[in-house]
Amino acid sequence: MNKRKFWGWGFADQILSKEEEAGVENRIAQNFGLSEIDALPIPIAEEIDLNKPRVQIPDTLKDILSDDHLERLNHAYGKSFPDVARAMLGQFPNPPDLIAFPKNQEDVVNALDWADKNNIAVIPYGGGSSVCGGVETDVDDSYSGVISLDLRNLNQVLEIDKESRAARIQAGIFGPALEEELKKSNLTLRHFPQSFEHSTLGGWIATRSGGHFATLYTHIDDFVESTTMVTPTGVIESRRLPGSGAGPSPDRMVIGSEGILGVITEAWMRLQERPNFRASCPVLFDDYDKALKATRLISQSALFPANCRLLDANEALFNGAGDGSKHLLILSFESADHEMDFWLKRALEIASDVGGEYELPQEQKADAHKSGASGTWRNSFIRAPYYREASVRRGIIQDTFETSITWDKGYDFIETLKEKASKAIKEISGKESTVTCRLTHTYPDGLAPYFSYTAYATPSTMIDVWKEIKLATNEICIQEGGTVTHHHAVGRDHRVKGYDLQRPEGFKDMLVSAKEGVDPRSIMNPGVLIDPKGKKYKHWMED
Amino acid sequence: MNKRKFWGWGFADQILSKEEEAGVENRIAQNFGLSEIDALPIPIAEEIDLNKPRVQIPDTLKDILSDDHLERLNHAYGKSFPDVARAMLGQFPNPPDLIAFPKNQEDVVNALDWADKNNIAVIPYGGGSSVCGGVETDVDDSYSGVISLDLRNLNQVLEIDKESRAARIQAGIFGPALEEELKKSNLTLRHFPQSFEHSTLGGWIATRSGGHFATLYTHIDDFVESTTMVTPTGVIESRRLPGSGAGPSPDRMVIGSEGILGVITEAWMRLQERPNFRASCPVLFDDYDKALKATRLISQSALFPANCRLLDANEALFNGAGDGSKHLLILSFESADHEMDFWLKRALEIASDVGGEYELPQEQKADAHKSGASGTWRNSFIRAPYYREASVRRGIIQDTFETSITWDKGYDFIETLKEKASKAIKEISGKESTVTCRLTHTYPDGLAPYFSYTAYATPSTMIDVWKEIKLATNEICIQEGGTVTHHHAVGRDHRVKGYDLQRPEGFKDMLVSAKEGVDPRSIMNPGVLIDPKGKKYKHWMED
Repeated sequence: MNKRKFWGWGFADQILSKEEEAGVENRIAQNFGLSEIDALPIPIAEEIDLNKPRVQIPDTLKDILSDDHLERLNHAYGKSFPDVARAMLGQFPNPPDLIAFPKNQEDVVNALDWADKNNIAVIPYGGGSSVCGGVETDVDDSYSGVISLDLRNLNQVLEIDKESRAARIQAGIFGPALEEELKKSNLTLRHFPQSFEHSTLGGWIATRSGGHFATLYTHIDDFVESTTMVTPTGVIESRRLPGSGAGPSPDRMVIGSEGILGVITEAWMRLQERPNFRASCPVLFDDYDKALKATRLISQSALFPANCRLLDANEALFNGAGDGSKHLLILSFESADHEMDFWLKRALEIASDVGGEYELPQEQKADAHKSGASGTWRNSFIRAPYYREASVRRGIIQDTFETSITWDKGYDFIETLKEKASKAIKEISGKESTVTCRLTHTYPDGLAPYFSYTAYATPSTMIDVWKEIKLATNEICIQEGGTVTHHHAVGRDHRVKGYDLQRPEGFKDMLVSAKEGVDPRSIMNPGVLIDPKGKKYKHWMED
Repeated sequence: MNKRKFWGWGFADQILSKEEEAGVENRIAQNFGLSEIDALPIPIAEEIDLNKPRVQIPDTLKDILSDDHLERLNHAYGKSFPDVARAMLGQFPNPPDLIAFPKNQEDVVNALDWADKNNIAVIPYGGGSSVCGGVETDVDDSYSGVISLDLRNLNQVLEIDKESRAARIQAGIFGPALEEELKKSNLTLRHFPQSFEHSTLGGWIATRSGGHFATLYTHIDDFVESTTMVTPTGVIESRRLPGSGAGPSPDRMVIGSEGILGVITEAWMRLQERPNFRASCPVLFDDYDKALKATRLISQSALFPANCRLLDANEALFNGAGDGSKHLLILSFESADHEMDFWLKRALEIASDVGGEYELPQEQKADAHKSGASGTWRNSFIRAPYYREASVRRGIIQDTFETSITWDKGYDFIETLKEKASKAIKEISGKESTVTCRLTHTYPDGLAPYFSYTAYATPSTMIDVWKEIKLATNEICIQEGGTVTHHHAVGRDHRVKGYDLQRPEGFKDMLVSAKEGVDPRSIMNPGVLIDPKGKKYKHWMED
């Protein structure tokens, strides 16, 4: 099996070429006016000391529990900037004592039983691609230990119902394996988060992941037909229903629960037929307010483009999809049932009416989304995590934050967030930074802007600098009326100055109580989303 | 103000004409081979004795609490068959002691404070159109009293955000008043449940009401942008967001909560522009399985018809929209942005490919949905509740049950439900009954069938007969894998042999705990959905 990097994104052999690495270094030097840049070495697993596991492997669970050194490193962190930074620096003060690799749902039940009886915290782990501290094994001293529970062996498509276009799928399956299996039936989940290659179905559901479709089916939420979750007090299995009005939706309590209620083991998922018909066209705008207006009108037209991503001029420039003078709206439609030319034509009319410029391709190619400006952007999007590693080694912070807001506030909100974030980054890091924006998803009533920045720091300051910037961006999103996350989840990093203020206090009371109902000893992912009853989790960002 | 009937549907002056009344009597006589039929008189409010209120009106709440005789009658029941039957028979053993008519959210807070301190159960009341015992004031003896809390004075559209197509609306507004107000801005909620005229926004949200759109936006759920709910321990107000991935959705806990967590006082709702473009056409099928297949393929095509209702031959016949030989699929599309001819054309192609017959109208008229077979069915749909009253007076039960199921089980499920329900009705009532079916809503992964029946009973047996049939239909829906309700809500009547078995036990634990978190003394709508912690509500159906 290809080994995953414990210090970065993807597999150990997925690294930048020397030329790419030099390119990154050059860009950093130019950007920040530096003549010399130190780069941290890639850490070596064997050279990192870990504390001894505080928990012994019981005989009954010896087939599924492991204290392997590399696995403990692998499961100590997710893949946020500070996760990669700490790993790169060889800092692993709170690794899991053990890792559980259940082979089936019964193993999960047994592992939770054992953990519950022994006061051991359990951190559910899918692909480990969390960028918000969702899988970190840093729990407070009231626990006698902590395990990471890795679902990788629950990786099968168990059943396909072609008539209903749905499948029963185990939670630990990774994106590519899932799609490969569904392809045999000409079906697809068509859920492609940036993490696709290194994240799992269960992780997507637990974190309300955002995917391929820019409109209509933006989150994984709407593809969930039913769920099975193992909690410390039993298994919760919802009924397979296309729609129901029987009380609050059980699935909606599971979706977004980020491991604090239990471990999602499988789900029936709604699928799509693989699209045969595509129509797409990039549209350029001189004015950002006109670009936003076009995006709004298209989002309200019920044409439901699959892609409706608006890149501001800088975002287009930094991703090689423009010269920095125009804003780029990537529009595309797809269907398994009918030609989409009419849909595209009408969307382009709307865009053109408010000043958008486009050249309709003579012929719509099946791989149009992979060529031209769309294609350039797409490649840049997929390669981004690898480029980030080269930056981390040099202490440079490349990070993003993302939110959503209603259209009435849209333009001012984006301008204010860019401005406030740039100002905060300059104050914290001492150097100028451009904050760029793209819309990842749009709705009839609003939009989801996604901001990227590069900030100056050094390997020794980068974690503290990042922490201050994260607190600032959490605060800015909340103060301006947005959400602290549209699809990156809350985890631990989005709580302070963020989710803790965003969620209604009474809803927190319900959530804390609901958790108590199924996890009375609070072993499940403590510190994520909420403090369990009677505990006050101290976040490392509050140090 | 036009007075509402305490013994039936709608306003006191909305009754059948003598001819219509005679028509109903004739049909009953024919149906069941009866030569003589007794009819109960319409009850007179003043002749009905009620127990004395057990609760005194405190001075601080004298402006909002009432012990008016007619209001106590009005708020004792919803509008289910046994509600109307009991009212018609003058049976009111458990009326509310008092009714609260708060004028604003602060009044709601004060009323709940007072009720909570004095151990008084609170039954939130919107339009009172519940058909499942959701607003009944029959609570157990552990409470010192019970009030019905009527939101009718919270009836304003408070704010309209045209850019985001959304409005902040008070929960007590009725359908017609809401649409009238929104029309001024060329907007509409386009949520038209059968109860539209006599139900409220808050009621729709609390019960996950099903509305106008047969696909895509089937329930009120998807139109909810944010909610405000007053609980006994405080106000829960969610943030206005077009989409979010920050933890389990607070709104999804409110939606469908049926008054057990608190009182919904207002919501930001997503609106539509009023449609200018319509295209519709009825399609006829000889074979039901082919009709179902066409409906499935259209539901999976992403064409999203606004109407996609499939009436079986008997359902069409009984509603005057057919001669009983063909199954009728009512297809219509609408848009505020573009012509829908292409959409209709493609849907008709799909239908035709599997044997559907249609005649495309020469010209699409703006009011096509109000004419022809569609129009006949529509009128019958709106008049149905009034016809039911004439039946109740004669002891005849006209009722419905509705559910949902995935497509793979679709055909067999419908046949089995019809067969089992017919058999049960015959066994219980002693006479044959035809159970008819229409699909009210459809999904890419399944369908929502809605069953109607007429059963023989007499004024003295009708309540017991209904009760047995209701228990049987609850049980049939659950046994065959469906939901006990797709959009009529659970209330009290769908619990026994229904929701109590359907909801995952662990989810019930979470719900009970969540309720305890915001309603620690369990004053909110006890007996609906769940038994609050430490209480065992005895349902009247279990007598």
